[in-house]
Amino acid sequence: MPEKNSDPTESEVVTAGALVIGDEILSGRIREKNAGHLAAVLTAIGIDLREVRIVGDDEAAIIEAVNALRARYTYVFTSGGIGPTHDDITADAIAKAFGLPCDHDPQALKLLGDYYADRGLEFTEARKRMARMPEGAAHIDNPISRAPGFLIGNVHVMAGVPAVFQAMLDNVVPTLRTGRVLLSRSVDCPFGEGVIGEPLAKIQDAFPDIAIGSYPKYDAGRFWTEIVLRGAEERRLGEAEAAVAAMVSSLAA
Amino acid sequence: MPEKNSDPTESEVVTAGALVIGDEILSGRIREKNAGHLAAVLTAIGIDLREVRIVGDDEAAIIEAVNALRARYTYVFTSGGIGPTHDDITADAIAKAFGLPCDHDPQALKLLGDYYADRGLEFTEARKRMARMPEGAAHIDNPISRAPGFLIGNVHVMAGVPAVFQAMLDNVVPTLRTGRVLLSRSVDCPFGEGVIGEPLAKIQDAFPDIAIGSYPKYDAGRFWTEIVLRGAEERRLGEAEAAVAAMVSSLAA
Repeated sequence: MPEKNSDPTESEVVTAGALVIGDEILSGRIREKNAGHLAAVLTAIGIDLREVRIVGDDEAAIIEAVNALRARYTYVFTSGGIGPTHDDITADAIAKAFGLPCDHDPQALKLLGDYYADRGLEFTEARKRMARMPEGAAHIDNPISRAPGFLIGNVHVMAGVPAVFQAMLDNVVPTLRTGRVLLSRSVDCPFGEGVIGEPLAKIQDAFPDIAIGSYPKYDAGRFWTEIVLRGAEERRLGEAEAAVAAMVSSLAA
Repeated sequence: MPEKNSDPTESEVVTAGALVIGDEILSGRIREKNAGHLAAVLTAIGIDLREVRIVGDDEAAIIEAVNALRARYTYVFTSGGIGPTHDDITADAIAKAFGLPCDHDPQALKLLGDYYADRGLEFTEARKRMARMPEGAAHIDNPISRAPGFLIGNVHVMAGVPAVFQAMLDNVVPTLRTGRVLLSRSVDCPFGEGVIGEPLAKIQDAFPDIAIGSYPKYDAGRFWTEIVLRGAEERRLGEAEAAVAAMVSSLAA
């Protein structure tokens, strides 16, 4: 289990991997939205998302991916496959990945049973499926449709519906150990990467402590570039930004 | 090397993996668009996209991912990291993954040299980087900004800018061995998955040759469900669709 709520240490790198589960993403029927949201949230709190994998509703594929990711990164976040239908196999697959039994969690059964009773709805076998989780898992609250996600080891298992995923993630964020937040600056450049590649590489060499990325954009038949600088130190970042801005100005002159 | 332009065999399953490369995706700065486009295109031609991985501009991560994917699937498609700047390391990483030297391709140098000369632009060292590819790679034409992608083994290496990725993919599609195209039907259901989970599982049991998926939707405080059926045989698909539609109607009654 990861430590929780510990103080962030300035030099510490906290990493994450994400696993998106669902045939509907791989068939192109549904555009994936959770990984991008997760990426932005983690970056904002100084957690370094290193890898995303998308696999189908396939037990062997889920097991292999979650085992690879959980061994490698501080945290893993999964999205999808924890609903009530026959193709929702994430809870069982995660339990198998950990070598744990998967069963109806008594607390989750109570929570869901009360929820449906309050609404005069039948607590069907399908709905009971949503109470299944690996033995020893802790709940992740779901304020929208109640069925909880869960945390087992360093793996946070969350829903695929974006509104529910986001609400669950909001509940998880305060429990995470966070790393050093990198500051960033962005410089828009009216030239394509072919023009700025060499001078930009020279600036990168001069600022090894600043990560400089260039992102090509293509609008209406013209290439331009967004240059993004990231670093931990305000002063050095400002110096590198000034060097990039001066380089862009000199090319425009 | 995969066979190309061979006749599709009805029963053959052709698979694919995708590798998206770029720090800007993992930091949440840029929303990933190419995997979704690729998924839709491959599904339409009967190629089964089984897995997507997103990694940063990191040589070891690219090598590991491409080697895992190329061993496992008929085809691999990569996106990103083949531009002219210092953080574009895909060509070198792919060459290392294959144990091949990576150098300026003479044909690509000629192509790019002519392109920039025609435009009165300098053929900078940075621009020459875009001619680098593993020894023995075949070009993938780029009608937009000329710098080619490449095919090495079963790996198609393409640009990250969506307009260029899509144009390259258009050029690649006619060269691919395609599989059996699955037909699909979709039934909108006004109930959440908790209501339909059990009857839907029964229909799935009765139609083992049809893949039935249910995709929860959440709009304005209400859950509803899109039920998608996929199969190779028109008649069986129609029967399964009728069974699902009858189930939904009986719940609404």
